[in-house]
Amino acid sequence: MSTESRAQPHIVIVGGGFAGLYAAKSLGRAPVQVTLVDRRNFHLFQPLLYQVATGSLASGDIASSLRAVLGRYKNVRVLLGDMVDLKPNERKLVLSDGELIYDTLVVATGVQPHYFGHDAWSQSATGLKTIEDAAEIRRRILLAFERAEREPDLEQRRAWMTFVIVGAGSAGVELAGALGELAHETLRHEFRRIDPAEARILLLEAVEHILPTFPVSLSVRAEAALTRLGVTVRTRTRVTDLTEHSITVSCNDREEQIPARTILWTAGVRASPIAQVIAHRTGAGLDRLGRVVVGPDLTVPGYPNLFVLGDLASFAPQHAVPLPALAPVAIQQGHYVGRLIRERLAGKTLPPFAYRDKGNLAVIGRNAAVARLGRFEFGGFVAWLLWAFVHIAYLIEFDHKVLVMLRWIWSYFTLRRGARLITVSRAD
Amino acid sequence: MSTESRAQPHIVIVGGGFAGLYAAKSLGRAPVQVTLVDRRNFHLFQPLLYQVATGSLASGDIASSLRAVLGRYKNVRVLLGDMVDLKPNERKLVLSDGELIYDTLVVATGVQPHYFGHDAWSQSATGLKTIEDAAEIRRRILLAFERAEREPDLEQRRAWMTFVIVGAGSAGVELAGALGELAHETLRHEFRRIDPAEARILLLEAVEHILPTFPVSLSVRAEAALTRLGVTVRTRTRVTDLTEHSITVSCNDREEQIPARTILWTAGVRASPIAQVIAHRTGAGLDRLGRVVVGPDLTVPGYPNLFVLGDLASFAPQHAVPLPALAPVAIQQGHYVGRLIRERLAGKTLPPFAYRDKGNLAVIGRNAAVARLGRFEFGGFVAWLLWAFVHIAYLIEFDHKVLVMLRWIWSYFTLRRGARLITVSRAD
Repeated sequence: MSTESRAQPHIVIVGGGFAGLYAAKSLGRAPVQVTLVDRRNFHLFQPLLYQVATGSLASGDIASSLRAVLGRYKNVRVLLGDMVDLKPNERKLVLSDGELIYDTLVVATGVQPHYFGHDAWSQSATGLKTIEDAAEIRRRILLAFERAEREPDLEQRRAWMTFVIVGAGSAGVELAGALGELAHETLRHEFRRIDPAEARILLLEAVEHILPTFPVSLSVRAEAALTRLGVTVRTRTRVTDLTEHSITVSCNDREEQIPARTILWTAGVRASPIAQVIAHRTGAGLDRLGRVVVGPDLTVPGYPNLFVLGDLASFAPQHAVPLPALAPVAIQQGHYVGRLIRERLAGKTLPPFAYRDKGNLAVIGRNAAVARLGRFEFGGFVAWLLWAFVHIAYLIEFDHKVLVMLRWIWSYFTLRRGARLITVSRAD
Repeated sequence: MSTESRAQPHIVIVGGGFAGLYAAKSLGRAPVQVTLVDRRNFHLFQPLLYQVATGSLASGDIASSLRAVLGRYKNVRVLLGDMVDLKPNERKLVLSDGELIYDTLVVATGVQPHYFGHDAWSQSATGLKTIEDAAEIRRRILLAFERAEREPDLEQRRAWMTFVIVGAGSAGVELAGALGELAHETLRHEFRRIDPAEARILLLEAVEHILPTFPVSLSVRAEAALTRLGVTVRTRTRVTDLTEHSITVSCNDREEQIPARTILWTAGVRASPIAQVIAHRTGAGLDRLGRVVVGPDLTVPGYPNLFVLGDLASFAPQHAVPLPALAPVAIQQGHYVGRLIRERLAGKTLPPFAYRDKGNLAVIGRNAAVARLGRFEFGGFVAWLLWAFVHIAYLIEFDHKVLVMLRWIWSYFTLRRGARLITVSRAD
């Protein structure tokens, strides 16, 4: 680094998700040197990951080069690196292949799928958090139809044609809806022995209603929309076991084993292992999902120059439950921390972080969505339009991904899915 | 299979590349049952693979689901399968997991990179034939710049910034041009320690001129265009050794070792191993690239119901050298075989296959190309427009990939590359 850059405070941000990226953008052109460290060279637009998993979008459509997004800020540099440890008293970040000295550290390494003590299930039930997960789910779904087409045995064929999605939060609901459309519309005329429309798509949820964070009236609407797409919704149903060939569920104390070759896991997330590193080095608390409990200004208690934000943080407004792991929370926290760091340089401070809840959206297939906007609730095509508008606006603001919008318009009218590749890893 | 389908002749096609796919299309709606067998579920538009390797296009842009492309032909079914053997006297095709009885067999399994006896080189010098190859090359190129940015040692940094492309046929020239643009334009402002424009891009060719199948005047023009993009062209240069860290070349009997961390291999191809199976089972001859020598009607001598076509076939017009491994050759052969099979059903036959050579095109970056159209030769922007038109027309005819065209127009004017992902295999 040049001597000139040493003169300014060095802000190190770990993680290029929504929280880290918006913090970096907020510090662009401020009188600081920013280093954004990520294991990957791209920001992933996670809310649309399910569209890659079901072949509507290509990986490149929802991934933006971090260097390209941040290239215009001359005071921000991007490093490909892997955080492994932290020495807060020496203000040192330890990477797998070196160290960085910081004045302020912002950690936002996010979450990973949570199998609630059954880590072995991850082998059979793929989670949906990375671009590789999405390619793997796409591979498994498309391969299942291919296998079914070649399978002479009726029972075996039925197992290949059974898709189980565990967990009916937004990710599970959106994945189930897209899978319903894929089977019933896109693939309809493409097979000779099987009828893809006979695919059995099960969406399992442990609690009373799907989309538990939405008002009940919207959960009911979403359930109806999923049923129209051929998805069978089963609530109050828990997974007790799963293998490569079947899943065992329990509902009202009755167990049932369902033969199924494709099981997808959207049941929950837990903090990235970095949370434990931070807890170990600073004595910070972790909540039940392993997230770092932060103070009102998103710092780790006792460490005013160590911020934790986004999905990795457990931030609870006064007398309230911690904020959910949502993109808008992460974006607002990134903005807040960037602004707080700038204010501090001017000798000022900011009031505690407060989340402005603008609403909640989930989409079910091509025409339906459910939306809560403040006190307003609505569903159907209007909600879908709103969903499309919000997501497109973000993608365009972000990386000028105008073509994603055109691709959507195209596939909306043609029902085509242009990215239906079964790819393999080179290691195969 | 139903009894109805048994009544009609069963045409089995192995390989969904240009040759196999066009044969299948040509037999769509003919009074035959067609089964297209491929290991992958998609057709790959190989002429644009280098654009995926350099981040301009996403994988999904140049891959089309075989089921989607052939779905409209009710008499064509697609099977995911892997040919391992052949019993021509029983008219039996052996797959890794089953057998198929055919009346006529069409084999078009294409080629793979050829390391001329140095198979170990494939570990360090990635070839460019599959979609996974392209993702791997993209990963290696982008990672090299990332490593260079973090490398304090000047000599090491220089090795990370040195890119060697072995073989200056169309693929090598196009890859070198795109890499030149990536380094000099797209990445220009995105790094802080290194200047991507200082990347050293070497294009090596063993013979006198690059693009050996083009007229010399066009080779010279292409070389000038590459030089303008910052590519160093070295002809009459042979590779004598290569490792992960360097490549050793020989030119005019002088050896030189060049430290380079990224070596890409476009020096040659040889037939898929299926050629040896066919030779073993039928006594057919193989040419020096391992391709099956076929008769004037593209059948294996002595086996009138066994066709070999596309890159896998060695077809020599009377008193001439075998046709090159080009997409137009494969497409015309696919059409020919489809038509011949239809004519035979009507008790007729066709004159021998004749290749109509419409010309040859290679593109160098955003504005330049060289083209030979019959007796006409030209270069520059007009050739580039022709190249873009030809490729876009194919992609659209093929799979309505209108958006690829829009993506091109977009990146032509903005110099953006939207698909710059470093992805890893799940096995990592």
